[in-house]
Amino acid sequence: MSAEAEYTQYFLGVDGGGTGCRARIENDKGAVLGQGFSGPATTRLGIDEAWASIKRAFDAAIEQAGLSAVEIARIHAGVGLAGIGRKGALEALQGIPHPFASLHYTSDGMGACLGAHSGQDGAIVIAGTGSIGLGFVEGRQLRVGGYGFPISDEGSGADLGLKAVQLALRAHDGRHEKTALLSEVMHRFRNDPGEAIAWMDRSSATDYATFAPMVMRHADQGDAAGRRIVQGAAEQVDTLVRALYEMGAPQVALLGGLSSPLEAWLAPDVRRRLKPADGDAVWGAIILAKKESGHF
Amino acid sequence: MSAEAEYTQYFLGVDGGGTGCRARIENDKGAVLGQGFSGPATTRLGIDEAWASIKRAFDAAIEQAGLSAVEIARIHAGVGLAGIGRKGALEALQGIPHPFASLHYTSDGMGACLGAHSGQDGAIVIAGTGSIGLGFVEGRQLRVGGYGFPISDEGSGADLGLKAVQLALRAHDGRHEKTALLSEVMHRFRNDPGEAIAWMDRSSATDYATFAPMVMRHADQGDAAGRRIVQGAAEQVDTLVRALYEMGAPQVALLGGLSSPLEAWLAPDVRRRLKPADGDAVWGAIILAKKESGHF
Repeated sequence: MSAEAEYTQYFLGVDGGGTGCRARIENDKGAVLGQGFSGPATTRLGIDEAWASIKRAFDAAIEQAGLSAVEIARIHAGVGLAGIGRKGALEALQGIPHPFASLHYTSDGMGACLGAHSGQDGAIVIAGTGSIGLGFVEGRQLRVGGYGFPISDEGSGADLGLKAVQLALRAHDGRHEKTALLSEVMHRFRNDPGEAIAWMDRSSATDYATFAPMVMRHADQGDAAGRRIVQGAAEQVDTLVRALYEMGAPQVALLGGLSSPLEAWLAPDVRRRLKPADGDAVWGAIILAKKESGHF
Repeated sequence: MSAEAEYTQYFLGVDGGGTGCRARIENDKGAVLGQGFSGPATTRLGIDEAWASIKRAFDAAIEQAGLSAVEIARIHAGVGLAGIGRKGALEALQGIPHPFASLHYTSDGMGACLGAHSGQDGAIVIAGTGSIGLGFVEGRQLRVGGYGFPISDEGSGADLGLKAVQLALRAHDGRHEKTALLSEVMHRFRNDPGEAIAWMDRSSATDYATFAPMVMRHADQGDAAGRRIVQGAAEQVDTLVRALYEMGAPQVALLGGLSSPLEAWLAPDVRRRLKPADGDAVWGAIILAKKESGHF
């Protein structure tokens, strides 16, 4: 081992969400040494499942980086994890042994916020299957919305989907004009409200969100129902962004699977004030690792 | 037995719903001879449960009427039952032995429609925990909405409740003006969105509908959020009523627990065109019994 290598610092970031987990190792000069991926990592699936997924992702990254045991022991790790707020989850995870110099946890949302603003004060609005506003300002944590579907998560993919199904059923029995979008929605139910009822009985927010791309496509093509639904969602996202600025966030970034298709629908004042994210949630987890280990 | 009694006809009506079951026996002159009540009767609870509840209600009515076995055998019965459309339900119920001259089933909604218009063509809109439009016109059955919460049942108690919880959460984190209604809703959750999330995870349409009286009360007192929610619900009920008239219903009656509080909020053209119900759903079930046995 060279004298130089002895002083190299390694930082590992992990972003664990409901659909997948990503890990990345960088050295203290910001060079990416290795990456790894695995399946869903969220405390909703259980602590052991979440940790197994996190481990699969960082093991692959370590292997790609070709680090020795001595070097692994010098890694400072940060993990952003979905559902970390669940009662007892953090304590249970902290009890699991790991080979690193340090390992710290935050929520997947806060990890994304750290990455979006390079660890500086700021906020994010995530518009994906759900929606939420999160941020850091002078030591305070900000939070708007994101209490779950259907009582919250306005402007999310699940919300778009629910409204499309609602209007499609109204169009089906003559209470609303039958647009191309609404016909396509009912086609998914073989034009039978009974199929829609049966689908509803076994559907989660994720299932409702599967309609979001269809709604966005028709809205972009001028479909009256699609436009109305997307405009309503965009107004809700506008409100989340404005609320975060009003709470003192100096900058707000829009993230999530719907952020790019929705952006054109936002109010001009909101679009003007949004800033692009500096980095992703894995970068945010690396910032967490650096901050907590005094390297930031 | 007198010669006159030999010729007396008896008609039994039963209205079985999700919250309770009512039975009434009348003679062919329309005199009420006996009434009976029991708990929920819906195929959702299982066929045996539904029948047990129906039987408890009509046994009580028969006992009150003091009919002999010979007289019971002359009863023509009609039953309006929640969930009769469920696959296999009607066949299973028709296989259960009964002591009457005849027994016929319809849905609780159609029973209510028969009673509302004395068996003549017409339609009803039910606004309660759920909402639906139903009717008979020249042999056709009409149906609008009522596909279930949250994809349908617009303007229902559950819909009022969901919108109140949504706005209360928005007011809680600064996205909406905090009105008296929204404060009272959050008070039910001890001002903690976490409580609202936990409540949502175990709540059905019936739980959402428990907020409806609170919403109506605040709306009637001028609360801005309450008024907005109730106006939205009233517009949806307006649409159900208008759709039924457009489908050819010669008359529409508004029924259900929300019908009376909502009526003042309906559009003038809709309020003008609504007619009061002639009778209740038990009367509708008696009409069914009379029609099916050729006494109408």
